[in-house]
Amino acid sequence: MNQPAKKSIKHALPVTREADFAAWYQAVIAEAELAEESGVRGCMVIRPWGYGIWERIQTLMDAQIKAAGVQNCYFPLFIPLSFFEKEAAHVEGFAKEMAVVTHHRLIGDGKGGLVPDPEAKLEEPLVVRPTSETVIGAAMSRWIQSWRDLPMLTNQWANVVRWEMRTRMFLRTSEFLWQEGHTAHADRTDAMEETLRALEMYRAFAEGPLAMPVVAGEKPENERFPGAVATYSIEAMMQDGKALQAGTSHYLGTGFAEASGIRYQDREGTQQLCHTTSWGVSTRLIGGLIMTHGDDDGLRVPPQVAPFQVVILPMLRDGPDDDAVLDAAGALAKELGAQMAFGEPVRVKLDLGAIKASTKRWNWVKKGAPLIIELGPRDVAAGVVPLVRRDRLYTAEGKLSAASVERAAIADAVVAALEDVQNSLYAEARERRDAAIRPMTHWSEVETYFAGDEVAVKGWARVCWSRPTGALLDDVVARLKALKLTIRNTPIDAPAPSGACIFTGAPALETIYLARSY
Amino acid sequence: MNQPAKKSIKHALPVTREADFAAWYQAVIAEAELAEESGVRGCMVIRPWGYGIWERIQTLMDAQIKAAGVQNCYFPLFIPLSFFEKEAAHVEGFAKEMAVVTHHRLIGDGKGGLVPDPEAKLEEPLVVRPTSETVIGAAMSRWIQSWRDLPMLTNQWANVVRWEMRTRMFLRTSEFLWQEGHTAHADRTDAMEETLRALEMYRAFAEGPLAMPVVAGEKPENERFPGAVATYSIEAMMQDGKALQAGTSHYLGTGFAEASGIRYQDREGTQQLCHTTSWGVSTRLIGGLIMTHGDDDGLRVPPQVAPFQVVILPMLRDGPDDDAVLDAAGALAKELGAQMAFGEPVRVKLDLGAIKASTKRWNWVKKGAPLIIELGPRDVAAGVVPLVRRDRLYTAEGKLSAASVERAAIADAVVAALEDVQNSLYAEARERRDAAIRPMTHWSEVETYFAGDEVAVKGWARVCWSRPTGALLDDVVARLKALKLTIRNTPIDAPAPSGACIFTGAPALETIYLARSY
Repeated sequence: MNQPAKKSIKHALPVTREADFAAWYQAVIAEAELAEESGVRGCMVIRPWGYGIWERIQTLMDAQIKAAGVQNCYFPLFIPLSFFEKEAAHVEGFAKEMAVVTHHRLIGDGKGGLVPDPEAKLEEPLVVRPTSETVIGAAMSRWIQSWRDLPMLTNQWANVVRWEMRTRMFLRTSEFLWQEGHTAHADRTDAMEETLRALEMYRAFAEGPLAMPVVAGEKPENERFPGAVATYSIEAMMQDGKALQAGTSHYLGTGFAEASGIRYQDREGTQQLCHTTSWGVSTRLIGGLIMTHGDDDGLRVPPQVAPFQVVILPMLRDGPDDDAVLDAAGALAKELGAQMAFGEPVRVKLDLGAIKASTKRWNWVKKGAPLIIELGPRDVAAGVVPLVRRDRLYTAEGKLSAASVERAAIADAVVAALEDVQNSLYAEARERRDAAIRPMTHWSEVETYFAGDEVAVKGWARVCWSRPTGALLDDVVARLKALKLTIRNTPIDAPAPSGACIFTGAPALETIYLARSY
Repeated sequence: MNQPAKKSIKHALPVTREADFAAWYQAVIAEAELAEESGVRGCMVIRPWGYGIWERIQTLMDAQIKAAGVQNCYFPLFIPLSFFEKEAAHVEGFAKEMAVVTHHRLIGDGKGGLVPDPEAKLEEPLVVRPTSETVIGAAMSRWIQSWRDLPMLTNQWANVVRWEMRTRMFLRTSEFLWQEGHTAHADRTDAMEETLRALEMYRAFAEGPLAMPVVAGEKPENERFPGAVATYSIEAMMQDGKALQAGTSHYLGTGFAEASGIRYQDREGTQQLCHTTSWGVSTRLIGGLIMTHGDDDGLRVPPQVAPFQVVILPMLRDGPDDDAVLDAAGALAKELGAQMAFGEPVRVKLDLGAIKASTKRWNWVKKGAPLIIELGPRDVAAGVVPLVRRDRLYTAEGKLSAASVERAAIADAVVAALEDVQNSLYAEARERRDAAIRPMTHWSEVETYFAGDEVAVKGWARVCWSRPTGALLDDVVARLKALKLTIRNTPIDAPAPSGACIFTGAPALETIYLARSY
């Protein structure tokens, strides 16, 4: 057969994943109009399509959070320095990268500009929250009196700021959006249960709505959240083989409770310290979405989190057929909007924008709308609807692939296609991820594999270790760092390891993943 | 008849509206667990019941915003000083009350404390957004090229900060939550249409879901948003007769477009300045809700914005009947949750908290859940459901009023009651407001009325004026200020005025409201 090689296709993006993955990532964000630089250092503007994805994530995740009995609240943006001085490890971990408010007024500088008014210097500087453990801890110490008040389960959706020297949109920005769950419990068992419940919520959310396979597990001691007793994460593999930490859940022990005075009277009348947890996911998930599902034509958004699942583009030619096409497109939009997929009404966009038809089509391809329907007068006359699946854009010959669906069958076809796109994106990512995980039993294998050209190295190593601590762990971390590697996590569902620790030779206790990461 | 006077009722709050309205307001917020001081100057913690009301406001308002074709985005929290220097009137209006970030790192002070690191001083200080005209203007200047890009309709839900010396929860806090719509248009007509569309959206929202009657109208020149050509507001009357500005919509002319360079190429190929608008409502709406619907037993939340519309309290006695009561309460919660009211599933809370039954009942009374059902073993045995309406809490004899509804009829009764509570709260507020508006035709009437004891003066004056400007307006403002009055707005639907201006004696041009305000 004379089938042209795929690379002969002229793709929509100016750069391919293979040629330059980092440049490709920026190109997807720009061309899909997800976000852009704001002119404010390290802060991005999230554009409607990007924010729409975040709204979908919020809607679905918030329902899960509420279903778990967690109540949303809102806590202050500003945290007084004194709050931060309470928990030593926490300070140590965050003090180095926080935005500090020192003045509450501006004044003219006499040269037409503005400067902070020296008369309006704050007595105590305020920190823009990098996370809210301390201020929520102070509230919990007021709210919790007795065992009857436990568990106390709170969450907030908010912006937080961590000063970053090197920023990358969605992955590492000075300001980002997230949810932070904060809970207080009577004992360790209950708090650990909540920590793992949140972790499992994140795993199911990543693998469900986001169609992004992840490994849920415990971070090693050196990667713990500042002040935490145990930190868990979900780790996803990007198409360049790097790992992305996509969500974390922390068991904080009684350290934060002690610092904030979160105590309760137990059933016997004794004062006890609470055990607390915190857990969060952020707009970073959108970075993960891009690097999991994007291709050389732009983004592919899984239907469950797509702001629009079906985009209808009427092909108008300023001619006598236009009215019929518009009517048919309108009726189609209405009918599809009345269908249900994933338990919600199908989200349909009828795009009547005054731009060239092919530009419009490619805009939606680049944005990654799951299904695209270009409806022309011939389709209307023939009683068919051409249905393009964004996840299978080309025929074997490298041409745009559109199924011709009978008009009467389109509603069912759309619902079925949405479910299939969702499943196919997950299956594709899962297959790629699994193929890129290499079990290794000797350190030399790790060294050989990761010594290669960074571009060629696309995957993770799965190894067993003896979970060393202290100086032994420092040594492991240093050896890994030389290869630009980190320990991602210990999967919670891994079978018991056998054999020797790849680092120390001692009997292995756990399975861990080693990877380069974002 | 031997009917006890209402004042013999022992109400749930420690202070009545009549005794001390300001203290009553704080008591409602505390007792209904809406919000509390955070320990951070001027910033409050919004607790689950208060935040739940805000989530309801967001959900309903966001649907309206989206239905108008407006797209949600997210813009940076921080705005560089230089952005603020562009629009002179805007600077003038806001520069005096902004939080300024000057450092990006903390460092130990050598005494166990933390201080801003002098090495980490920002070259250009950043302002925490008091509103986002400038940064959104910069984005629009990038996004808008031609008439095809117009109108550009954006909105964001965000936190903003305006440094306030005297704060009051929900009404005036340094940090507050809001939505800010920002739109760009080809001409004045289109921009004014959008300005008034937003105003009408706010009016309908206040009078619908919030059951809060408002006057929609234009603010006088001296009350305009800094840099605006025209500012419109909705004004609600609180139970102490003061006015609350509950939402604003601004036509900004071309001033902001000029400052930010928002230009488009028209159909003839000429570069034109856009006309822009902005409009917003905030968590202040919750303050309005409290002072419109609260009574001496706490808050009364209109069903459309109540986080829970029906609260079911099983009366348990650690006895053999408990299981039957729990089963009945569970079945009831399930049945009610399957009903629809206001186009949404009824929101039901089955409260199983381990606290005393009467405490629990009064907690929900104070929170203002629209319907409360205390279900005991005798009710279950008799096949009835006792239904308490929060808006009609007492019988004529001053006892708690509960309708006994046949179990089979409860679903319909609940739906009907929810709709009636919503309408009754509006009617009650409307009647009180209308009775407290006094038309006045002579300045002496205004002076006499508003010279009285502040507590006794409960209402607004409706007068006609000639819309003076410049020094004449300054004079009017000063005369009003001496009586602690301001001009609230010129209602957009007022009939043409007749007679003379109450201030100048010139022929009247407009009707305006004079009031004390929050």
